[in-house]
Amino acid sequence: MSAAAPAAAPVCLDDYEALARERLDANAWAYFAGGAADEITQRANREAWAATWLQPRVLRALAQGHTRVELLGRTLAHPVLVAPMAFQRLAHDSGELGSSFAAALQGAGVVLSAQASMPLEEVARRVLPEATRGPLWFQLYLQGDRGFDLELVRRAEAAGFEALVLTVDAPMHGARDRERRAGFALPPGVAAVNLAGAPPLPRGGELCGGLLAAAPGWDDVAWLRANARVPLVLKGVLHPDDAKRAHACGADALIVSNHGGRTLDTALPTAWALPRIADALGGALPLLVDGGIRRGTDVLKALALGARAVLVGRPIVYALAVAGPQGVAHALRLLRDELEIAMALTGIATLDAVPRELLFDASKTHLGAPWERPR
Amino acid sequence: MSAAAPAAAPVCLDDYEALARERLDANAWAYFAGGAADEITQRANREAWAATWLQPRVLRALAQGHTRVELLGRTLAHPVLVAPMAFQRLAHDSGELGSSFAAALQGAGVVLSAQASMPLEEVARRVLPEATRGPLWFQLYLQGDRGFDLELVRRAEAAGFEALVLTVDAPMHGARDRERRAGFALPPGVAAVNLAGAPPLPRGGELCGGLLAAAPGWDDVAWLRANARVPLVLKGVLHPDDAKRAHACGADALIVSNHGGRTLDTALPTAWALPRIADALGGALPLLVDGGIRRGTDVLKALALGARAVLVGRPIVYALAVAGPQGVAHALRLLRDELEIAMALTGIATLDAVPRELLFDASKTHLGAPWERPR
Amino acid sequence: MSAAAPAAAPVCLDDYEALARERLDANAWAYFAGGAADEITQRANREAWAATWLQPRVLRALAQGHTRVELLGRTLAHPVLVAPMAFQRLAHDSGELGSSFAAALQGAGVVLSAQASMPLEEVARRVLPEATRGPLWFQLYLQGDRGFDLELVRRAEAAGFEALVLTVDAPMHGARDRERRAGFALPPGVAAVNLAGAPPLPRGGELCGGLLAAAPGWDDVAWLRANARVPLVLKGVLHPDDAKRAHACGADALIVSNHGGRTLDTALPTAWALPRIADALGGALPLLVDGGIRRGTDVLKALALGARAVLVGRPIVYALAVAGPQGVAHALRLLRDELEIAMALTGIATLDAVPRELLFDASKTHLGAPWERPR
Amino acid sequence: MSAAAPAAAPVCLDDYEALARERLDANAWAYFAGGAADEITQRANREAWAATWLQPRVLRALAQGHTRVELLGRTLAHPVLVAPMAFQRLAHDSGELGSSFAAALQGAGVVLSAQASMPLEEVARRVLPEATRGPLWFQLYLQGDRGFDLELVRRAEAAGFEALVLTVDAPMHGARDRERRAGFALPPGVAAVNLAGAPPLPRGGELCGGLLAAAPGWDDVAWLRANARVPLVLKGVLHPDDAKRAHACGADALIVSNHGGRTLDTALPTAWALPRIADALGGALPLLVDGGIRRGTDVLKALALGARAVLVGRPIVYALAVAGPQGVAHALRLLRDELEIAMALTGIATLDAVPRELLFDASKTHLGAPWERPR
Repeated sequence: MSAAAPAAAPVCLDDYEALARERLDANAWAYFAGGAADEITQRANREAWAATWLQPRVLRALAQGHTRVELLGRTLAHPVLVAPMAFQRLAHDSGELGSSFAAALQGAGVVLSAQASMPLEEVARRVLPEATRGPLWFQLYLQGDRGFDLELVRRAEAAGFEALVLTVDAPMHGARDRERRAGFALPPGVAAVNLAGAPPLPRGGELCGGLLAAAPGWDDVAWLRANARVPLVLKGVLHPDDAKRAHACGADALIVSNHGGRTLDTALPTAWALPRIADALGGALPLLVDGGIRRGTDVLKALALGARAVLVGRPIVYALAVAGPQGVAHALRLLRDELEIAMALTGIATLDAVPRELLFDASKTHLGAPWERPR
Repeated sequence: MSAAAPAAAPVCLDDYEALARERLDANAWAYFAGGAADEITQRANREAWAATWLQPRVLRALAQGHTRVELLGRTLAHPVLVAPMAFQRLAHDSGELGSSFAAALQGAGVVLSAQASMPLEEVARRVLPEATRGPLWFQLYLQGDRGFDLELVRRAEAAGFEALVLTVDAPMHGARDRERRAGFALPPGVAAVNLAGAPPLPRGGELCGGLLAAAPGWDDVAWLRANARVPLVLKGVLHPDDAKRAHACGADALIVSNHGGRTLDTALPTAWALPRIADALGGALPLLVDGGIRRGTDVLKALALGARAVLVGRPIVYALAVAGPQGVAHALRLLRDELEIAMALTGIATLDAVPRELLFDASKTHLGAPWERPR
Repeated sequence: MSAAAPAAAPVCLDDYEALARERLDANAWAYFAGGAADEITQRANREAWAATWLQPRVLRALAQGHTRVELLGRTLAHPVLVAPMAFQRLAHDSGELGSSFAAALQGAGVVLSAQASMPLEEVARRVLPEATRGPLWFQLYLQGDRGFDLELVRRAEAAGFEALVLTVDAPMHGARDRERRAGFALPPGVAAVNLAGAPPLPRGGELCGGLLAAAPGWDDVAWLRANARVPLVLKGVLHPDDAKRAHACGADALIVSNHGGRTLDTALPTAWALPRIADALGGALPLLVDGGIRRGTDVLKALALGARAVLVGRPIVYALAVAGPQGVAHALRLLRDELEIAMALTGIATLDAVPRELLFDASKTHLGAPWERPR
Repeated sequence: MSAAAPAAAPVCLDDYEALARERLDANAWAYFAGGAADEITQRANREAWAATWLQPRVLRALAQGHTRVELLGRTLAHPVLVAPMAFQRLAHDSGELGSSFAAALQGAGVVLSAQASMPLEEVARRVLPEATRGPLWFQLYLQGDRGFDLELVRRAEAAGFEALVLTVDAPMHGARDRERRAGFALPPGVAAVNLAGAPPLPRGGELCGGLLAAAPGWDDVAWLRANARVPLVLKGVLHPDDAKRAHACGADALIVSNHGGRTLDTALPTAWALPRIADALGGALPLLVDGGIRRGTDVLKALALGARAVLVGRPIVYALAVAGPQGVAHALRLLRDELEIAMALTGIATLDAVPRELLFDASKTHLGAPWERPR
């Protein structure tokens, strides 16, 4: 079932992490692998998926099963997108084009970061044609200058990006202790080329050295929604009330995210936030989720908790570092294979309505004490 | 109380695991010791039993006590069966005959795997006569060809197997990362000899490369029940509603199982699934359970949670690897000794109605915080 | 405040454990330090005390405070007794006399084991006079021969032991894996001298090789109560219903105990059993508790949960091994000092009615997730 | 945003701890880093903050944000005070003056310990003028002699200290095992110079060797309140009923504290005590909290749980040891930077009414089992 594996023969996404650690220099490793502060949220993201127990069904009809899902008017071959990640040329010369091309080959979606290290037009032009790939979206921050912001939006629309992903959880860079300890710096030749010419951030106010003067607000979301010609996705929502407000503002979809634990440490894991947001919205908006997704079972759990699709970040850039585009294709194929196996083994034939009841409510089990087995 | 111990003097089932790790080659070790993906369910199975606390009674009348239980019309000397495990000749030349003979000597039941590495007729012919051994059952998968399946059933019935165990939790092989990392392959001379001549699996559908075309359904269970001449046991049920449906389909018993954590990782541990299924069935069907049973106290807990008997898998093949049939006999004797001690120390004289109240409801203890002691 | 410390300067009871591990040979270490099976209960005993949080009061009147408690008609200087432990000459030549003399010096109570390695009469004769020491009790098992049992009781009464402690949680030796791995055997010169001449245990029945033929029952308790001339204490009760029955049988006090985790592994920790038994009895009988008491705060918590006094086992024999009677005296003084400090720091002046409310109900804290801080 | 970092480039408060461990001698390290007994409370303080999950809001207006808070009639630049710590000349020659001057530079408050190793008048005279620094408070114990106590109070008032902090949780020194193992002793030249001439403690009573004869009570609080000319803050309250009584006694503010885990081990962590006290008082008194605060997110959580400000102890003395006053200034700047980032990333513009709802109620998440991910 698997595509040809690269030399070191990783059999799951974590294997790519271990290999990437050997391959990347300390500077790039700190950038990609690190998170905010003590990296508690970064670890908790993964642990929350792992600690969500499946309660499988047996002997269900599976012969007509498939992994397709509908999202913003398109049919995806499977519910996985590559999360927006900056500066992918730190990992491999092929950069964002390499990861995007591999994703397109595997039918996965791609969200290109505004801080990509390659021109957005080049990426859009050289990936596969729309009919043969998954969705291609463009992620951006609002930079405090509507002229510049709108120009960037128009470039993305013109290049063929099908949706805009506005990141709303990072008005400030988080306290990335690991990066700071490593003295992280962009090497020559790696830069946010799509943001060249951006005006300096306006300064003002007392908090954070004045860097919040132009922090975006809900009015900026409304402005962007009014001016964009493609669907608008908000990324970084964790609170049900913010999800409802995003809906009221006209957002077309939400990504439940804590920025992979890279901004606010001890923010709750996304697996805990997702069901509360799904319950609050009652299906009014399609939801995506990211943070700690490493296994096909994690994808299935995300869908059972209310997501339509998931985004995968670090493992993609690790695979890129290890084996270039071939590595990314292999990693995405592994994840899809695992998802299909998980569906088969839980009796889930299609993904349009994965029941929450697939997950075991551990709070009903009071025989096993809330106590780890002593060592 | 114990049978003569082999040289290395294991005193409990875990000791056999440690010794087997030294004895088995990497190929066989990966096959027997490994589980699906991150092996979370495999570990959780054990931890769930260990974290279930006993609340013993004292000064009870024990002189008339014994370990016998009734199961499918037979009296078992004690409530332990050897779980179906494939390719036991990977562990020891005596293979399934070795483990079965030893189990028969100890009065334990045996479930022979359809993927046994020895002819089922040979195993049946050479174990002890029915009167002097425990039950002898035959496990199978439905292979997508009713002709072949029925022929296999008839062979098992003719050979004297007393019940059929249909495994329903593995329409697909799980993602066995450890096996894949080890490059597991069957060595020359070890094969599923009882499945020789099986037609190729029908292919079709999209999921899992078309391998689910012939995945069995509830109608296949009904067909098998209608055609089998011996009791039918369904293995791999974890959901109360599936248990009820199995009962409606005519199953004669159920084995609550997650395949020892070898198929779907993060499936809930069996110690959590068992009481909910027992409550749902209200005694309508006898229940067995497997997954992580290593101690006599685990057996007793399983019975308190609603099981009539338990199956033990990996420890048996480890003991076979360490000391052949003598090792298996010793391991089963150790487990039975521990069960008897556990009965004596909890005030349980007989096993026909072990009260659930034997287990302490830890949710009532809110003084100890849900917090591990800091290190 | 402390008595002169021995050379290695232990500052708490755990220090004696570490030192004893160096001092004792492997045989004696396995015997004293080991528990049943995986030693889960042995560890859980300690962790349950440690995980019980104190909610101290401030500015309370303490000048009239003291540590005295009333127990079975006597006033104890402080609520600590040395638990019955067999074969103390394995630890130090001075054996049970050494530990008992040191305990008497410190005003602690002593429960001499029937399996003591010194004559009970010698111990009783050579400890301090009753007026200047704590209570002196004698522990026994019923051996299946009322003649022998009564003779032993009469010897203990004649020697001056003030109460009998009947152990009811060990009709069978537990599965002491650590002892078995070490090949534990009594060395020459160490024996249960007080049981010389005991008739062989009657055999019969199927469980446990017939060793349960003479396992004691409630009628034996009633017989002993009717024949003993001193108070009768039952040791090893964990279930509230057994506690009520013991009261109905005329027991004068109970020791909530799981035998220090040496018999039934995964029996619930005593800190969890104690409050339920205290609630069931409503003060009808004085309660003692043992298992994992290592700190003055543990003693105070035990009293808050309903105990009148505690027993300390392993630390005493460790101190005996490290520094003989002087070590035992020092260890008991350390524990009493810690108890006094704990009283001062929680605002508890006297021990006759330590309120349960001194313990924080962690179930009311739902902000901190039931999740260990990721590492 | 950060002040110039010292050579070793610490990026967070924990880095100073690691560096201080290398810099301090064993004697001073044991004194500052150690806590009571097994240091369970000391670790739990930190873990309770870390395990409190943030549920951030997005797209909030932040441009007018600031970190100012009102406390006892003054406006603080940010809600951080240096906790009272004795003998700071053990860490650095500049001692309490060094840490106080650095704190004043950073706008942080200072609580000078009565056991300071420098004259209180010198510290008060040489820190910055009141208008350009944070609050300057004086901590004291009642020593059992009202004459001496009042003289000390008058000296502090005369020197310009703006409030008195009466520590009420330490009528006795705790069992500081780490100190005792290290044989801690004050080196020549380091002493509690402000307590010179204190009369010996009165002795009497039985508990704690008579050291509790003069332990303060609520009447002493009332006496001090009646005689002091500045606000009175009680430090060391953990129980809601004691908080209510403190209010009735006229206290002007409370510090929820367990003395950094240095007195009573297994006292509940302050993050658990704080919200219950806040609820009990309903805003009647301003609350402060200390114990385990290491991150800007911890400060924000403390405010969400009802505190007006926090105190930071050990990290300050570690920074003093590593880099003198410059280290302290840098550490306080790091903490303030982190607080500002945390505010920006959670949508909290000002600190006067941080909602409790900012914290995620993990008890509502029953999908993730109360089970750590097996390793």
